[in-house]
Amino acid sequence: MTRSDGRTATDLRPVTIERGWSAQAEGSALISFGNTKVLCTASFTNGVPRWLKGKGTGWVTAEYSMLPRSTNDRMDRESVKGKIGGRTHEISRLIGRSLRAVVDMKALGENTIVIDCDVLQADGGTRTAAITGAYIALADSLEWGRAKGFIGKNSKPLIDSVAAVSVGIVGGEPLLDLAYVEDVKAETDMNVVVTGRGLFVEVQGTAEGAPFDRDELNALLDLALGGTADLTAMQVASLAS
Amino acid sequence: MTRSDGRTATDLRPVTIERGWSAQAEGSALISFGNTKVLCTASFTNGVPRWLKGKGTGWVTAEYSMLPRSTNDRMDRESVKGKIGGRTHEISRLIGRSLRAVVDMKALGENTIVIDCDVLQADGGTRTAAITGAYIALADSLEWGRAKGFIGKNSKPLIDSVAAVSVGIVGGEPLLDLAYVEDVKAETDMNVVVTGRGLFVEVQGTAEGAPFDRDELNALLDLALGGTADLTAMQVASLAS
Amino acid sequence: MTRSDGRTATDLRPVTIERGWSAQAEGSALISFGNTKVLCTASFTNGVPRWLKGKGTGWVTAEYSMLPRSTNDRMDRESVKGKIGGRTHEISRLIGRSLRAVVDMKALGENTIVIDCDVLQADGGTRTAAITGAYIALADSLEWGRAKGFIGKNSKPLIDSVAAVSVGIVGGEPLLDLAYVEDVKAETDMNVVVTGRGLFVEVQGTAEGAPFDRDELNALLDLALGGTADLTAMQVASLAS
Amino acid sequence: MTRSDGRTATDLRPVTIERGWSAQAEGSALISFGNTKVLCTASFTNGVPRWLKGKGTGWVTAEYSMLPRSTNDRMDRESVKGKIGGRTHEISRLIGRSLRAVVDMKALGENTIVIDCDVLQADGGTRTAAITGAYIALADSLEWGRAKGFIGKNSKPLIDSVAAVSVGIVGGEPLLDLAYVEDVKAETDMNVVVTGRGLFVEVQGTAEGAPFDRDELNALLDLALGGTADLTAMQVASLAS
Amino acid sequence: MTRSDGRTATDLRPVTIERGWSAQAEGSALISFGNTKVLCTASFTNGVPRWLKGKGTGWVTAEYSMLPRSTNDRMDRESVKGKIGGRTHEISRLIGRSLRAVVDMKALGENTIVIDCDVLQADGGTRTAAITGAYIALADSLEWGRAKGFIGKNSKPLIDSVAAVSVGIVGGEPLLDLAYVEDVKAETDMNVVVTGRGLFVEVQGTAEGAPFDRDELNALLDLALGGTADLTAMQVASLAS
Amino acid sequence: MTRSDGRTATDLRPVTIERGWSAQAEGSALISFGNTKVLCTASFTNGVPRWLKGKGTGWVTAEYSMLPRSTNDRMDRESVKGKIGGRTHEISRLIGRSLRAVVDMKALGENTIVIDCDVLQADGGTRTAAITGAYIALADSLEWGRAKGFIGKNSKPLIDSVAAVSVGIVGGEPLLDLAYVEDVKAETDMNVVVTGRGLFVEVQGTAEGAPFDRDELNALLDLALGGTADLTAMQVASLAS
Repeated sequence: MTRSDGRTATDLRPVTIERGWSAQAEGSALISFGNTKVLCTASFTNGVPRWLKGKGTGWVTAEYSMLPRSTNDRMDRESVKGKIGGRTHEISRLIGRSLRAVVDMKALGENTIVIDCDVLQADGGTRTAAITGAYIALADSLEWGRAKGFIGKNSKPLIDSVAAVSVGIVGGEPLLDLAYVEDVKAETDMNVVVTGRGLFVEVQGTAEGAPFDRDELNALLDLALGGTADLTAMQVASLAS
Repeated sequence: MTRSDGRTATDLRPVTIERGWSAQAEGSALISFGNTKVLCTASFTNGVPRWLKGKGTGWVTAEYSMLPRSTNDRMDRESVKGKIGGRTHEISRLIGRSLRAVVDMKALGENTIVIDCDVLQADGGTRTAAITGAYIALADSLEWGRAKGFIGKNSKPLIDSVAAVSVGIVGGEPLLDLAYVEDVKAETDMNVVVTGRGLFVEVQGTAEGAPFDRDELNALLDLALGGTADLTAMQVASLAS
Repeated sequence: MTRSDGRTATDLRPVTIERGWSAQAEGSALISFGNTKVLCTASFTNGVPRWLKGKGTGWVTAEYSMLPRSTNDRMDRESVKGKIGGRTHEISRLIGRSLRAVVDMKALGENTIVIDCDVLQADGGTRTAAITGAYIALADSLEWGRAKGFIGKNSKPLIDSVAAVSVGIVGGEPLLDLAYVEDVKAETDMNVVVTGRGLFVEVQGTAEGAPFDRDELNALLDLALGGTADLTAMQVASLAS
Repeated sequence: MTRSDGRTATDLRPVTIERGWSAQAEGSALISFGNTKVLCTASFTNGVPRWLKGKGTGWVTAEYSMLPRSTNDRMDRESVKGKIGGRTHEISRLIGRSLRAVVDMKALGENTIVIDCDVLQADGGTRTAAITGAYIALADSLEWGRAKGFIGKNSKPLIDSVAAVSVGIVGGEPLLDLAYVEDVKAETDMNVVVTGRGLFVEVQGTAEGAPFDRDELNALLDLALGGTADLTAMQVASLAS
Repeated sequence: MTRSDGRTATDLRPVTIERGWSAQAEGSALISFGNTKVLCTASFTNGVPRWLKGKGTGWVTAEYSMLPRSTNDRMDRESVKGKIGGRTHEISRLIGRSLRAVVDMKALGENTIVIDCDVLQADGGTRTAAITGAYIALADSLEWGRAKGFIGKNSKPLIDSVAAVSVGIVGGEPLLDLAYVEDVKAETDMNVVVTGRGLFVEVQGTAEGAPFDRDELNALLDLALGGTADLTAMQVASLAS
Repeated sequence: MTRSDGRTATDLRPVTIERGWSAQAEGSALISFGNTKVLCTASFTNGVPRWLKGKGTGWVTAEYSMLPRSTNDRMDRESVKGKIGGRTHEISRLIGRSLRAVVDMKALGENTIVIDCDVLQADGGTRTAAITGAYIALADSLEWGRAKGFIGKNSKPLIDSVAAVSVGIVGGEPLLDLAYVEDVKAETDMNVVVTGRGLFVEVQGTAEGAPFDRDELNALLDLALGGTADLTAMQVASLAS
């Protein structure tokens, strides 16, 4: 089966990473997975929130949001509605956990990094693109902190890299990196967050249409590990440039 | 290794289901997983929200909340704070998706069921207890709807049952149904939602401490399938009584 | 006239008090007035809010809330609506004032007690059941504070007990402890909060249908004093057990 | 005992009623009880809220608010805080109930009246002044509705008048119409709403310092009935002018 | 052309300033521009917000609000809606900036003045009346602060006076001080804030109907400077009385 | 005097307009004024809000927002704070008014256009860049509506073009198109919105430091008209490409 955009089941969409897109943030990346475009910025602050003071450890958190017309139909702004929706909360928390899984908070010291992931254009996979791009912004902000002397010369706050991809079963077939038109037809949808060493940080599988069995789960995990290995290679290349 | 409450790694905590606890709801259950106690009520309404009218399908949704002193330290009420936190949103959405996975919306017809899961006492596993108890409330409310004539005599809106359990790796060992003291020490924490036929509805694994590998993931899934099979049997017994 | 549940005009509904229902709170009671069930928990904290610091006095406050399906028709959650309704505010304030009326804040010292009253099931008289049960939770939390050394051995923060009951005129007849079906038909509705010594803490009479005269007011007060004397006796028995 | 402003225990403060203060509202009054000044406006609309449509009855509701610097120390605006406080809710509800007690909703027909009571200056008794002034605004708005043909020629929506006064025990002595300096010292504080015929609409007595006995309650009610009779006479005079 | 109220194009409406209207505020004025009536109060506090502490400078800010029935049709309260509208925000900010333009913050010292402008009745020009009245309240509160010793004897925090007026083009003709009926028909509407010395603090011109040219702009500015000169004279007279 | 970026007083910063940046919106432009980058999207909907239905006229509105790290220091998100700040409201309203000034609502017919202006990077002049870019998005969305048949073939909803620029007095000298470092030092700051024909839509001058006189106002207007004429030419070129 060929997919509507001509990919095979195991293909990622074209991925681009514009590292350092922002003139102001301590780290940033404009990442695209096909037509999905997410601007990731890292804000590094020396110091930690009050509840962490004096413990010698740092803090990394994330916020995700979509521009109102990043989608096909315009969505109301959450600022106008006066509250944040469940999906936004859920994804912000996922990104934060994913990044914290590769940071040694002791080595970070009493510093805080806030990662903002703003979806400029959405075509499926916004949360996985966000995590993959956020890692670049995070890595660069840590180097900024080191250059400023907020992180010791020999400290190694980054213990691994992290990337994410969506997988799903569409028309009975497991597919990698779902575009929006595939996502809405998926029977099962899974987001998998994996470190550079190939270990799982998050596995979130959801039966959208029909419950799935162990074999389907395994097929999806195989696909995902292939995709995140490719994304890890692109992250390495981006940070080396 | 024996656990602090004397269980083996593959033991559930004592489970009780007080079916029909509420005098007012169309279906209800007060479920306990050890010291975790959740009151689940189902509110059945003939009719659907405006966006579903005339489509011939029903709607099932859920809301989760914790009483302020269900926990060890009192939490501020979300009604007082004026907004719902991310965790609450996330769990409400999880419960709703889990229940919808076993309901045939066409067979339900233009009826709406709202499931409320209020945690009266929390000792780990509140979301999995909530899903397991919510299924009882849901099933009874469907029978109520059938008795009232809102659901046809031959309609079968329930296509399967659903139960959930938490599993995690604590001190390197995979454990079933984590109590709070275990949950806070877990390196990996996973919530698994499984139908009565043994199919996955949701798999949500999170590396709290260290990323996990494929073998650990498999061990956790094995444990979870054992636990949900036991819970399914208890649900069957409760509904038969 | 016999009432729909067989009571005479001067009968309370069956009252039960499950003292110590919560495994976590410093004091708790699950109280029922007939089908009305309220879970009352007391959270004792050493220390006071900033505006009271250094004054040598404590603070007691209360929050009241109803579960969404505690009522016949499901109500929207106030957390979902993002704001607390007037009735909730009013009752929370009433419970707080009623409890503070029997506490010597100097003897309490710089300690704070928050009483949560969550209505699990509502059938009229939720606020009066809440006050009556809250007193049990309050008393036990004070003993907890004494045992922990936060309250001096010879301090007597409790200067009296407090209980509450509703009374009303239904079909021209004054009745004690209105159930919901009576409450909606009442011409006049009054909530009376009385100490163990028989003194008034709050008298809140409202003409729902027709204004009332002095004789009717007196008849209602007589009924209320009888009811609160009975409730006081049950509180004494509960705390003695 | 003479009071700080020279009154005897049974004296009201000087009361003024500027009927028709507003050029825009269908009825209005700027009322003062001593230094307490409340602007009451009635907004008459033909038609009722959706939930009342087609029932042939009208609706009367009220909103109370204080200007931020109506008090000695500036209060934050509730609009800026983004939520309405419990006290505001409680008083708005009290005013609404008090007015509805003297309106025949059938005779009003499908018309809605919203009464706004905005405290321009506060010196104790703002809610009782608000009720007393709101009645004037209400009465005039009903005449406006009759003149416009929204109320039938022979309909009598007003079945009585209504006025309110505060009473309290200060230094052991029952006093009428407490000014702020008296209110803060009161052991017991009571707001009493009475119709022109001398019947009670609301009796809200609260022990601020010490619980009160039946004799004290009776003394306060006697004082209140005297005060509201005087206020009724002033209302009659104002409406006749 | 004569205007509906008989004025010529260059006439202000009758202006009255009741200085010291409030018994509680440190400075106050009830100002009217025709039927527009705004109550302005100044709250003087010794001390500054945290972010200004230790800098030796003061702070002046303003809040504007309309009573719900100050207008022809009743508006919902912003406190009830739970948020402040854009127009309210905009005008509050304008008043604050206008007042700060004539205050020497160093000479004010670490003192804070909050000006509240509450519109009791609205007939066009509420923001300009508010600024003009707020200056009176501000000036009096500064004298209060000097009398209390919070401002040094030789300090001169007021460096100029400030007044404001609206101008607009209606039916092709530039008019001064628009009443509501004129405002709604205006092609161009401009609010001009001018100091006692005749310098501009704010010029806010908006094409409501058709864009305007340089000549029209100049004609409007000429009118405005005439109007503010008159208002300045009235402020001087009021403060001298 | 040369400016920090080498411009003369009458130079705009480099302006780029990426027309059609968004794959989803009916019209869009990514506009930059130097380092200020604003993404403008137009969402065209057939139909109008309820309050306009059946009047035969359309509606154009705008929303402005800044990404949290568009600025030098990260700002909290307004969605997280739960409310929109005054500055955001003010600018959204300004953009909406500016666009409506060049649209013939009758010719637009019952169609609605929402323009979103999201600041990706901020370096002064975000509102003027937003207006200038929004016009491009608006124009393209109108052509989309015409192509879809929602706007008649001979209808001309666009009656002019519109562009905006900031001007200010810095160190006594009037400068065009202030960058952030200039803006914070400006004594007077003015935003001027001008149509393609050179007529004013908005003139908003504010004395940040010292009030300004008529000559300064005139010098600023001269500068602004030069700048908007240049921006108009760029808009024409962009739409012709």
